Amino acid sequence: MNILIVYAHPEPHSLNGALKDFSVQHLQAQGHTVQVSDLYAMDWKAPIDATDSLAAPVGPHFHPSLDSKHAYANGVQSPDIAREQDKLRWADTVILQFPLWWFSMPAILKGWIDRVYAYGFAYGVGEHSDQRWGERYGQGAMSGKRAMLVVTTGGWESHYSPRGINGPIDDVLFPIQHGVLHYPGFDVLPPFVVYRTSRMDEARFADVRSALGQRLDTLATTAPIPYRKQNMGDYMIPALTLRDEIAPGQSGYAVHLDASQ
Amino acid sequence: MNILIVYAHPEPHSLNGALKDFSVQHLQAQGHTVQVSDLYAMDWKAPIDATDSLAAPVGPHFHPSLDSKHAYANGVQSPDIAREQDKLRWADTVILQFPLWWFSMPAILKGWIDRVYAYGFAYGVGEHSDQRWGERYGQGAMSGKRAMLVVTTGGWESHYSPRGINGPIDDVLFPIQHGVLHYPGFDVLPPFVVYRTSRMDEARFADVRSALGQRLDTLATTAPIPYRKQNMGDYMIPALTLRDEIAPGQSGYAVHLDASQ
Repeated sequence: MNILIVYAHPEPHSLNGALKDFSVQHLQAQGHTVQVSDLYAMDWKAPIDATDSLAAPVGPHFHPSLDSKHAYANGVQSPDIAREQDKLRWADTVILQFPLWWFSMPAILKGWIDRVYAYGFAYGVGEHSDQRWGERYGQGAMSGKRAMLVVTTGGWESHYSPRGINGPIDDVLFPIQHGVLHYPGFDVLPPFVVYRTSRMDEARFADVRSALGQRLDTLATTAPIPYRKQNMGDYMIPALTLRDEIAPGQSGYAVHLDASQ
Repeated sequence: MNILIVYAHPEPHSLNGALKDFSVQHLQAQGHTVQVSDLYAMDWKAPIDATDSLAAPVGPHFHPSLDSKHAYANGVQSPDIAREQDKLRWADTVILQFPLWWFSMPAILKGWIDRVYAYGFAYGVGEHSDQRWGERYGQGAMSGKRAMLVVTTGGWESHYSPRGINGPIDDVLFPIQHGVLHYPGFDVLPPFVVYRTSRMDEARFADVRSALGQRLDTLATTAPIPYRKQNMGDYMIPALTLRDEIAPGQSGYAVHLDASQ
């Protein structure tokens, strides 16, 4: 397989750095081809701005989505953006690896999503009609590809448990797994989460590495999170609310899981 | 009141720019003192890195949290970080205003949080014992201050409704409102959200502006979201799970709201 690891940690000599190096070596040893977008090493520009298009703004002023659309459609995106899109097209599986900072990804990785996920590439794709509302949430450019998060956090597993104070980890990661990965079509594998990173010794690191290795060995076979697809009948269009007869009376993130999948 | 607006949009001639300008003028006309951290105009550096401390790493390699702790404690933070912390100390109320990109804040604002929220300032504050687990989630440096999100999104309100495909807006914003604002002690006001921004004409903009003005007029009196406080008995310490007898059998973000507040 072709595997892209998008990696965001400022220090190579870190738990994240060690896990990334392990993943690369482990995957290569299994015969996979691996590319790493090491965002800090690349000095990735995080903020969306007018320089993301090589063309002048299409309107009187810079408009993030309309200028992204124009630049993508006309091949005048900033080359750093186009290169990352090429890596995504090349990849069969994408791993986003990062420390959970303030219950989300580090800014530099958010900036990779914000900029690489262009209008026409990751959103604004396909027809909008009474039957379809764009190719998204289960359809789109990343259809047929798999994605997985590898996340570290200082918090304890109990802090992210169903009644934990940080919120359940599945809910904390929902905006990324559902909103960033399922949206353009990825099949999203359950995340690999390392808790309580300040308590890491050699023995525990060996266990973590072993558990990660097992997840890497089963990238092609692990069942994805069964997120519902938008345009397959479960949702009203264009309201995009779940039909009354599905999970009746329930609400929240969990209704977007289809247990029958 | 002293009001800090932290604002993240790349184009002044935008809906966000217009709403920010309106807020500044409206608040000043009411006699408030307003500062704006216009992150794009400031060319805010988003990624955490070793230059955030003017001192050498305390360990053999850069460590984001330990070096943040050392720099904060010893007054050797990068001056741009210290300036923003001073603004937070000065403010009675903080408004974060941004377009919702990929179900979170723009990278440049995430980088403001990541860097300004130093160890010893926004986290790692206070004793950790059997009775207290740091001053956080309702205690901390921002205690007694209020905060509110002003958010714009292209999605429709129904898409963010309880059964909407994007997830309920309260859940989408929970990692920010609870995890970024309640955590260091802010009282968090309900958010001001503008949906379907691509359909904005003069009449609708006047309505939005009027509604925002009402929210700005009631910053001091609006009831905060009743998030539970960590160290007041509702949670087991150190597991930080909600006690069995509170909201028994329930789980998810909603259990962290105390309807009796």
